[in-house]
Amino acid sequence: MAAAAARLWRLRGALAAPRAAACSSAAAGAGRPPPPPPPEKPTTRRQADGVRNIILNNPKKRNALSLSMLQSLQEDLLHDIKSKDLRVIIISAEGPVFCSGHDLKELSSEEDAKHHSKVFELCAEVMTLIQKLPVPVIAKVNGLATAAGCQLVASCDIAVASEKSQFATPGVNIGLFCSTPGVALGRSLPRKVALEMLFTGEPLSAQEALMHGLVSKVVPEDKLEEETMKISHKICKSSKSVLALGKATFYRQMTQDLDTAYKITAQVMVDNLTLRDGQEGIEAFIQKRKPVWSHSLDQKK
Amino acid sequence: MAAAAARLWRLRGALAAPRAAACSSAAAGAGRPPPPPPPEKPTTRRQADGVRNIILNNPKKRNALSLSMLQSLQEDLLHDIKSKDLRVIIISAEGPVFCSGHDLKELSSEEDAKHHSKVFELCAEVMTLIQKLPVPVIAKVNGLATAAGCQLVASCDIAVASEKSQFATPGVNIGLFCSTPGVALGRSLPRKVALEMLFTGEPLSAQEALMHGLVSKVVPEDKLEEETMKISHKICKSSKSVLALGKATFYRQMTQDLDTAYKITAQVMVDNLTLRDGQEGIEAFIQKRKPVWSHSLDQKK
Amino acid sequence: MAAAAARLWRLRGALAAPRAAACSSAAAGAGRPPPPPPPEKPTTRRQADGVRNIILNNPKKRNALSLSMLQSLQEDLLHDIKSKDLRVIIISAEGPVFCSGHDLKELSSEEDAKHHSKVFELCAEVMTLIQKLPVPVIAKVNGLATAAGCQLVASCDIAVASEKSQFATPGVNIGLFCSTPGVALGRSLPRKVALEMLFTGEPLSAQEALMHGLVSKVVPEDKLEEETMKISHKICKSSKSVLALGKATFYRQMTQDLDTAYKITAQVMVDNLTLRDGQEGIEAFIQKRKPVWSHSLDQKK
Repeated sequence: MAAAAARLWRLRGALAAPRAAACSSAAAGAGRPPPPPPPEKPTTRRQADGVRNIILNNPKKRNALSLSMLQSLQEDLLHDIKSKDLRVIIISAEGPVFCSGHDLKELSSEEDAKHHSKVFELCAEVMTLIQKLPVPVIAKVNGLATAAGCQLVASCDIAVASEKSQFATPGVNIGLFCSTPGVALGRSLPRKVALEMLFTGEPLSAQEALMHGLVSKVVPEDKLEEETMKISHKICKSSKSVLALGKATFYRQMTQDLDTAYKITAQVMVDNLTLRDGQEGIEAFIQKRKPVWSHSLDQKK
Repeated sequence: MAAAAARLWRLRGALAAPRAAACSSAAAGAGRPPPPPPPEKPTTRRQADGVRNIILNNPKKRNALSLSMLQSLQEDLLHDIKSKDLRVIIISAEGPVFCSGHDLKELSSEEDAKHHSKVFELCAEVMTLIQKLPVPVIAKVNGLATAAGCQLVASCDIAVASEKSQFATPGVNIGLFCSTPGVALGRSLPRKVALEMLFTGEPLSAQEALMHGLVSKVVPEDKLEEETMKISHKICKSSKSVLALGKATFYRQMTQDLDTAYKITAQVMVDNLTLRDGQEGIEAFIQKRKPVWSHSLDQKK
Repeated sequence: MAAAAARLWRLRGALAAPRAAACSSAAAGAGRPPPPPPPEKPTTRRQADGVRNIILNNPKKRNALSLSMLQSLQEDLLHDIKSKDLRVIIISAEGPVFCSGHDLKELSSEEDAKHHSKVFELCAEVMTLIQKLPVPVIAKVNGLATAAGCQLVASCDIAVASEKSQFATPGVNIGLFCSTPGVALGRSLPRKVALEMLFTGEPLSAQEALMHGLVSKVVPEDKLEEETMKISHKICKSSKSVLALGKATFYRQMTQDLDTAYKITAQVMVDNLTLRDGQEGIEAFIQKRKPVWSHSLDQKK
């Protein structure tokens, strides 16, 4: 029991503040109502009933992932992440282009290699951050997602797309192979599909993206909001701590061999049962009543 | 040749009695006609013409994977596994629910963590045992497979499902994230599809399960028996020893990098050709006649 | 910048002459017009406008991958690989069978284990060579691809198939499990689909192959040439050096964990930008003009 408690304490720390250093300003806002975004902020953050919407909001620049866009997205992902009021994050976009990838002006020869490095490293940081957050992150795509924009979709936990959406990695057209997007694509799509996209730059339709696993759901455009909210509300009905434990465990075991994966997860199941919400859920089920979640990582005494 | 012989001897030992310690009572029955199952046994085992049917047979409890169900399934999988009369195993279920996962009463607070551990560890043992058996194991699904029941489908070598079948991991609803099922799902489905299932608990239809690779065939309910037997009869036409060598090699090489995988399998191909059945097959093909298998791991002199 | 230059020099060496030792005769022909193939050569090589067609040309033997066929294919893949005139390779076949796998006469008991080893090792060498080449390799399939022939399709970067094409691994029928093809299939298809193919020998239709990711495109037979050339022409519009860098990087990062994959690729993106063609592409895009590629790995001064 002491060992289980220690494991859960470590988890609590990990879940409570992923990359705390990077989000000190955001974390400082915890508990207070969020200030209105300054006019230059390229993302918009809205939150209600446990659902945070982060909207890429620079349609004139096709929502390019400029340094300021990446920083703004990172802040919005990390803002008050500990709060029990936050249960799921949806990333969507203003305008017909979901996201067009990097801002090419930041990659021109007017900037040096050090600056270029900064762009790609921050981008990779944001992409991998998504998996480390304690809440599910859903990409809600209504339009074209290209290059690092396609990588963003591939990096979310869940992706819902409208039928008109398209996905492409056209870096070859401008002499810059989509090598970083290839990391996310190669882990989301069959290899041949990923390579045809990377070698030709040609788009995948929403239906093809569904068939090949890049997105998990495709709906008509006028059902996109409804479907995304349906998934979000389903997530909000669960215990935050249980989902956080499950998400962290899923990504962790996926990098292990089968025997190690089962060893890790069998222990996590036992730990899950010591959580207040673990026992509450099973008791409620046996007593045929609705569970009342604490959303905390406290253990049942 | 001596090295090849040694490799095959090791293989023979490995294939002959996976987890011999766990199945000593079953193994003792080798050669004698199987005793009729005691009335309380939650699985039914029938075998004819090389095909063993194991039927989860506790429909009142939705075929929950209780400790007794898991033990019974393990026994039936291992029973007389050496016999040349056994060529393929089919796992199916009585009633509208294929399998509902763990028996929640065994996971309640009335049992301690040690007991909970035992449940998850035995479950993982049975799931990984399937891959270690020397014969193909087919899941024949006609209904709902949830949680560890969905994990069981994902853990079989082949899965055939009727159109009405559904697959879900609804642990989040009762505060117990399906972390162990996630091991099998994460290795059978695109990541986004697996995570949407795990985060929402919502079911995948049979067609979606086929599209995403969780099952390998979907047929109308009235064709389920026919299709499963068609696959089984096809398997029965092959040499048991060749299939055993192939199955063990497939899972072994999948955990290796590409160069190592080819090094291993190129050697296995050469060893396969030294088997009596390896040479018999090729001779029969060249002589345009039906092969006569020995089903043994003996080498051609 | 010195480090980047060193990395690119190493890349240049690697890309310029993969397996130089194995292709010394071919490499010696660089710069001179290719000699007409001797009559006994089982593959035909044609090249125009950057597109090399390699045609398996022994339809009477169902284009079996005999030692001479494998050697001929290897030579044609490696021939003058450094040339800027070569941008993409298409592998197709004469006759109704794309490729039937190994020549069984070479695997009979009339040949010894040493000879058998040579066959499987050369085959694995050619399959893995495809991924190491600096240009994309497309399988253009119009008919049946079985055993090592199916492995060949699975090993290409991209695969386009006509609707009538089929894919099978029927080694079990002749007592020789398709263990080496299983390496490529297991990395291209969901595990259950691969195992059903390997255990039963039954074919996958073109549409099933598409759904499960073994091929990336399926078209009617009378559109097969058009579709393959459309993809090839798209590839020819890009910089050879950028594609070469991208292809090598894709396969390299796929064997790494996520953090390492991003570390590698973020650096490659920066290096890509130092290439003459990297800066040319971005400048052309910003200036709204067509890029003019050097196709070289030179860095922009």
